[in-house]
Order: sequence, then C-alpha cells, then structure tokens
Amino acid sequence: MRAHTDYLWFDTKKRHELVNITDRVAEIVAAAKVREGLCLVSAMHITAGIWVNDEESGLKHDVMEWLERLAPAGDYRHHQTGEDNADAHLKRTLVHHQVILPITKGALDLGPWEQVFYAEFDGRRKKRVVVKILGE
Amino acid sequence: MRAHTDYLWFDTKKRHELVNITDRVAEIVAAAKVREGLCLVSAMHITAGIWVNDEESGLKHDVMEWLERLAPAGDYRHHQTGEDNADAHLKRTLVHHQVILPITKGALDLGPWEQVFYAEFDGRRKKRVVVKILGE
Amino acid sequence: MRAHTDYLWFDTKKRHELVNITDRVAEIVAAAKVREGLCLVSAMHITAGIWVNDEESGLKHDVMEWLERLAPAGDYRHHQTGEDNADAHLKRTLVHHQVILPITKGALDLGPWEQVFYAEFDGRRKKRVVVKILGE
Repeated sequence: MRAHTDYLWFDTKKRHELVNITDRVAEIVAAAKVREGLCLVSAMHITAGIWVNDEESGLKHDVMEWLERLAPAGDYRHHQTGEDNADAHLKRTLVHHQVILPITKGALDLGPWEQVFYAEFDGRRKKRVVVKILGE
Repeated sequence: MRAHTDYLWFDTKKRHELVNITDRVAEIVAAAKVREGLCLVSAMHITAGIWVNDEESGLKHDVMEWLERLAPAGDYRHHQTGEDNADAHLKRTLVHHQVILPITKGALDLGPWEQVFYAEFDGRRKKRVVVKILGE
Repeated sequence: MRAHTDYLWFDTKKRHELVNITDRVAEIVAAAKVREGLCLVSAMHITAGIWVNDEESGLKHDVMEWLERLAPAGDYRHHQTGEDNADAHLKRTLVHHQVILPITKGALDLGPWEQVFYAEFDGRRKKRVVVKILGE
C-alpha cells in the first residue's frame, strides 16, 4: 500500500471564486505513483468547499448566484463574535467541502465533463486544501 | 491490498428518477472479494448524484419535489450554450454526487434503513457511475 | 494494510442537536494504530448527518435555523406512513451524512478550525455512526 499527502494553497483575489484545480490534483496523483486508489481532496478552511462539475462560465456564474440565494450574506448570530462570514460556512455546507476521486490505471478516473473546483466563499487570505492518496 | 473497479450504466426512461442500486453495488462488493474496505460510488455525469436514504415511495416523491423547489428548472446563464439542464447541475450539488460505503466482513456495512440510489436529474440518455473498492 | 472499524452510539435529549465528536473519532484513530490513511465517519440512520465546521455556538445556532428554513418541518407525503420526520431526511441530505478525514503521521489531519459534528435531526432514540479506517 502507498500513501501520499500534499497540500494546495490558495489566496484568491476575490471573496468568492471557483478555481479549477483538476490539473494540479492530477500532478499530485502522478507524483504519488499509485495505479489503483482513492484520492481525497478536502478544503481545510471552513468557509471553502470542493465542487466537481462543468468548466463552463455560465454555469459557474449560475451556481454562485444560486448559493447566494440559498445561503445569503446577511445578519447571523455568528457575527456577534466579530466575524462577518457566516454565509460562507453555509455555502461550504451546501457544496460540501470534499470529494473522493478514483484513480484507475495511474490517472484520475473522471467522467467526460467532470472538473474539480476549489470553491472559495471568503477569500483574500491564505487557505489550504489537503490531497491524500491511498492505493497501490 | 486489493483494488476493484466497475461501472454501472443507466439510461432512465424519465428525466428525473431515483434508481435503487443497493443490490447492484452489493454484487460488485461480492465480486471484489474484499473483507474490509471502502467502496466509492460516484456519478460520472454532472447532472446526476448518489443518495443514501430510505426506500419509501412517499419520501422519494418528497425529496424530488423539494429539490425542484430549491433548485428549480428555469432560466439560467448556462442555457446560453444551448443546454437546458442547469437545474440538474444544481440538484446534483445538493444531494452530492458520491458516497463512500464501508465494507465490513465482506459485505456493505449499512444502517438498518440505508439504501443507495442513483439520482438522475437529466435522464433519457446513457450515463455512468464508477464503483471503486479498496481494501483487503 | 490495516483496517479498523468502530461504532459510536447516540441518544440525544433533544430532537435537534449538534454533538462535537472530534475527540471520540481521534481516540478511535489512535486505537487503530494507522499512521497514514483515510477515516470514514458516516451516520447509519437516515435522519442524521455529519458536519465538519466551527465549534462556535452562534454558528451552530445559525446552521440549524438555516436548515429549518431550507428543509422545514411540515406536511410531507412520507407522513402517510405514520412517520413525522420527512424534514429530518432532507436536512441529512443538505449537510450530507458522511465525511472522510485524512490521517497523517498517526493523527487526524484537520484544518485549524475543523471540528467534526454528529448532526441529529430526529433524536431521542438510539442511533449509530460507523467509523472505518483504512491505511498502514
């Protein structure tokens, strides 16, 4: 069995951003030299998530607008601590903060349109994603 | 360590459908000859998901109606590409597109009511789910 | 390869409750003697979920209130079976019912604020969570 761990760092310019990380994850998979396995990609900061969907600008706009509708910025009890980002915690909850990608024959085994995105909901600061691979 | 990969194909008659795949996944687990492990079940098309919940027709009706309320069909920027299924991408996001099922003593280690469903939100075409097992 | 399985039991006093289980999961990881691996934490009852987020009382209040808004208690077709908890099935769907936690150098590899919660939406009865670890 092989295990391989790496971390991706982000410091987005905008507060809300979808960053396509498919190639960066694929590079880590190549470095891991695992032919058959599972690859966890998980946002370590609680105001960001991981989304597997389409690299299409209209849809990326739609999903962010839709998340704003379901989990709007506004007045939350969490803000009594001095924070102003409760909506980002809720948006992370909606998209989920992690995915498992299968590795088959040494490469990510994704569907034809599946792309992996880092979903930032409270950016403009350094944040981390863990990539952990288990396999053989 | 053993790794085992298989794929399930779907071509649903209706655009929206919940298909119980518990038995089909259990068959793949049996074929994998893994006694202790993890089984990833992940929808490879970005307008479908995987849902673990109750095999009860009323609840299955409720969840689909509720998804329609939170992520309604309608007018989205994605449709400028000629597509008409942006809501299906959002519904996949809500139910999540994958689960990990534990395998214990050679069988799926599910709760008393847990059943595994393929959740189709834009059907009537061929689509695929990957089942990837890691264990010993 | 090592595999280790354990179960956590819950019997919450309130119908809705967020229970911080980070320490209990960490104890199971320590007992597993796995240095590098993946740890699945999955709610086995279909009206509960697992949430990784902040141990902050305001935010915990916010998330439960927000789940009530998106998946309210009310009249559902599922209730024709005699049940009254359809909303709990939907809330489990929103927060998702499971997470995978990375294990690095023998410990949970969590972000600075990540805490693991059992999210109960229909409590006051005995329910179970499976913790399954795979690694070396």
